[in-house]
Amino acid sequence: MDKIKRERWKRKFGEWFSENIENAGIIDIRYPIKGTYVWLPYGFKLRKHLIDLLRRLHNETGHEETLFPLLIPEQEFMKEAKHVKGFENEVYWVTHGGIEELNVKLAIRPTSETAIYPMFALWIRSHKDMPLKIYQVVNVFRYETKSTKPLIRLREITTFKEAHTAHATKEDAEKQVKEAISIYKKFFDELGIPYIISKRPEWDKFPGAEYTTAFDTIMPDGKSLQIATVHNLAQNFSKTFEIKFEDVNGEQNYAYQTCYGISDRAIASHLALHGDDLGLCLSPEVAPFQIVVVPILYEGKEEAVNAHLKKVLKILENFRIHIDDRNETPGSKFYYWEKKGVPLRIEIGPKDAEANAVTVAIRSNGKKEQVKLEALSLHLKNTILEIKNTLRERAWSFLSEMTSSALSLEEAEKILKRKGGIIKTSWCGKKECAEKIENELNVRLLGINEEERKKGKCIACGEETESVLNIAKAY
Amino acid sequence: MDKIKRERWKRKFGEWFSENIENAGIIDIRYPIKGTYVWLPYGFKLRKHLIDLLRRLHNETGHEETLFPLLIPEQEFMKEAKHVKGFENEVYWVTHGGIEELNVKLAIRPTSETAIYPMFALWIRSHKDMPLKIYQVVNVFRYETKSTKPLIRLREITTFKEAHTAHATKEDAEKQVKEAISIYKKFFDELGIPYIISKRPEWDKFPGAEYTTAFDTIMPDGKSLQIATVHNLAQNFSKTFEIKFEDVNGEQNYAYQTCYGISDRAIASHLALHGDDLGLCLSPEVAPFQIVVVPILYEGKEEAVNAHLKKVLKILENFRIHIDDRNETPGSKFYYWEKKGVPLRIEIGPKDAEANAVTVAIRSNGKKEQVKLEALSLHLKNTILEIKNTLRERAWSFLSEMTSSALSLEEAEKILKRKGGIIKTSWCGKKECAEKIENELNVRLLGINEEERKKGKCIACGEETESVLNIAKAY
Repeated sequence: MDKIKRERWKRKFGEWFSENIENAGIIDIRYPIKGTYVWLPYGFKLRKHLIDLLRRLHNETGHEETLFPLLIPEQEFMKEAKHVKGFENEVYWVTHGGIEELNVKLAIRPTSETAIYPMFALWIRSHKDMPLKIYQVVNVFRYETKSTKPLIRLREITTFKEAHTAHATKEDAEKQVKEAISIYKKFFDELGIPYIISKRPEWDKFPGAEYTTAFDTIMPDGKSLQIATVHNLAQNFSKTFEIKFEDVNGEQNYAYQTCYGISDRAIASHLALHGDDLGLCLSPEVAPFQIVVVPILYEGKEEAVNAHLKKVLKILENFRIHIDDRNETPGSKFYYWEKKGVPLRIEIGPKDAEANAVTVAIRSNGKKEQVKLEALSLHLKNTILEIKNTLRERAWSFLSEMTSSALSLEEAEKILKRKGGIIKTSWCGKKECAEKIENELNVRLLGINEEERKKGKCIACGEETESVLNIAKAY
Repeated sequence: MDKIKRERWKRKFGEWFSENIENAGIIDIRYPIKGTYVWLPYGFKLRKHLIDLLRRLHNETGHEETLFPLLIPEQEFMKEAKHVKGFENEVYWVTHGGIEELNVKLAIRPTSETAIYPMFALWIRSHKDMPLKIYQVVNVFRYETKSTKPLIRLREITTFKEAHTAHATKEDAEKQVKEAISIYKKFFDELGIPYIISKRPEWDKFPGAEYTTAFDTIMPDGKSLQIATVHNLAQNFSKTFEIKFEDVNGEQNYAYQTCYGISDRAIASHLALHGDDLGLCLSPEVAPFQIVVVPILYEGKEEAVNAHLKKVLKILENFRIHIDDRNETPGSKFYYWEKKGVPLRIEIGPKDAEANAVTVAIRSNGKKEQVKLEALSLHLKNTILEIKNTLRERAWSFLSEMTSSALSLEEAEKILKRKGGIIKTSWCGKKECAEKIENELNVRLLGINEEERKKGKCIACGEETESVLNIAKAY
């Protein structure tokens, strides 16, 4: 019996996604403002584990957590011209306090550079004050005019981890970009989310950045989703916000900065990429419960099962568990927790009690086996590791299936029609060629794949180049 | 040598407070919007431990954590007339998205009843769906026109824990009010914050509530500070938001609701009440670091000290510690961490290494003693408990010192002039008498002390009553 099918998941991903995040109790989509949603208790727990993981990775690399105000005075927000231009159509403005009109309009942060850097200017005096590496996990807002989508395209991004750093030299900022990329790799690896890294084209970089490196993944429907960005800001913001310091030679210089962010989309891609036709399938790393325990009570056998249950619970002390003792049939409980994606189910029935064992079912492959109590703790530890690895490998092989190469626009078009995904191709770097590619294929140029070099001809103009370009139809 | 003085702390509390929360690195008060501040890394850690404690107390009593949107559509916000009236002067309104004017104005939550209850109406169908007990920890906003004060009177309240519950009967809601009070008692007891509980007068209850029970504490300057409120909402909101259910008899009824909240003021009162003339003095329960370790290195002895340090660190594995190995004098380090209020300091010098011991200094009483390594772990555990208890007892005896009784307006006035604090007195319950008391004494009627009954005469009109009224000059 192979329970694990991924047909509807792939063919009707849009429906699958909305249905399952709601059925599983992740969020409620009925809140009466477009693009804003309610985190339900189960989803909130998942989110919390994911944020804790992010926190750990930042703390252990010397980042310190802070919290800056939500509101930004108009004059600060308006300081960095390119930054303003990038956000002017999507910032929410607060204009009234009570019935009074405010003297100074307040922007609700779409991201916090302009809230944080005025404080950096106060904190940084000398090269000894750097590196300064802080982060915060906050909600940010974008007035999205495109159609919104839970966890993917939001007006309130409820989970935005943004890190901001300042350095005394250009080299240190470069190193920081590399550290950020390595933190994000670890983060996505822990979650089993595959990614491709691209340097965004000039016109698609973060407003105010020198350059932007982005992580994209591929959704089941073949469309790419940006899941993280890392920006080298050089001295662009430090010049605007007067973040000056005395360098080792006693001279005044502007700080070199970086910033990098991850959002609710990390949660979206975790939910999307590990799912199947039965529903969600969470990694034990962040699952609200790693194990659901279902006692199976037959009349006359309750006492034996309950006594056995007690012994089992002792063994489970170091796992995140939930005991489902509702008055429902075992079958309906199994179904309920399968949809919610709990990685492991432990059934405890009269036969398990007799055998001094439990029955362990694995959500991700549908396998079920009886395990003796004396072997249980080790078995679960190993199985949890195995599940984590298997989910990651399956997701990576999906990404690899969905990654193709194309030597011409025609070839690219065929691939896009057939299966979508990411296409690696060649591009000379000229904007007019980029526009041609975008327009003819209706794709996004994710950017240059810096990990690869390959001789080829620009698919728009035929010019020779060694740059590898990643393109995809994108969310 | 008695290092522990609390003179300036009491006499110049306002200055003491602003200075010390900044000197200790709790928040930065220089953010360019009045009444909004930046949580610095050290303060953020303190805040996190405090929130974790709140979470634990809510989770273990069956509350589930959720997260609702920040923005509330005008029509929802405007539904409950009394609620609107209570907040109409202090709500921030978002009117523009980008350069477009929004069709529907959005309120930034000053509290979340009107965001949450439309969802309750969708979630609750039957008495079986209740009790419904949720909470969230979020930022809320009030357009304060009075002068703002860090952590105490804010425009962005960064830490607002609000719980919301729905019940099938009036009795269940009453019980929930009691549970909320008992959770808050535990919370403040863990933090060592003393409190007095009052039932607020009719005109001072939460807008839309049936009645409001509040926790107040006394600041070092003798003014009271509201630190928690618990509201029985009866069916007021459920009727407005159509939160209906089928009861056990198959009849439709409106849910009975409660809500209760705690804010940044819990942090403010923790910082204020345990401090002294040296600076902050944190409880080990929530201190970012319970112990700061200061190695004292003399030339030629570094190796012995460092080897000893390693052994000590093994013993400290189960405590939250920070090792201060900066290139500064021990004296300046001691001073630095005293201001920040770290409960314990462990000094490790050559003599400690020789004696296979460390020197342990206690921040709250200035005592210092050498402790052998074999006894260290137990010694620290006991000392931490002792510190927690001592801080709590000292704060409670301060509250008791600052609590008086008065039989007449004149007597009350004298006490208020001499030392401020809370005054227990008698009041007949009439509004005109309340106004007289407020106006003549320039105090706030905190409300009826429901834990006490005492025969007396209303200090305004002389009418006999058994109600005990708490009054104070209030923040």
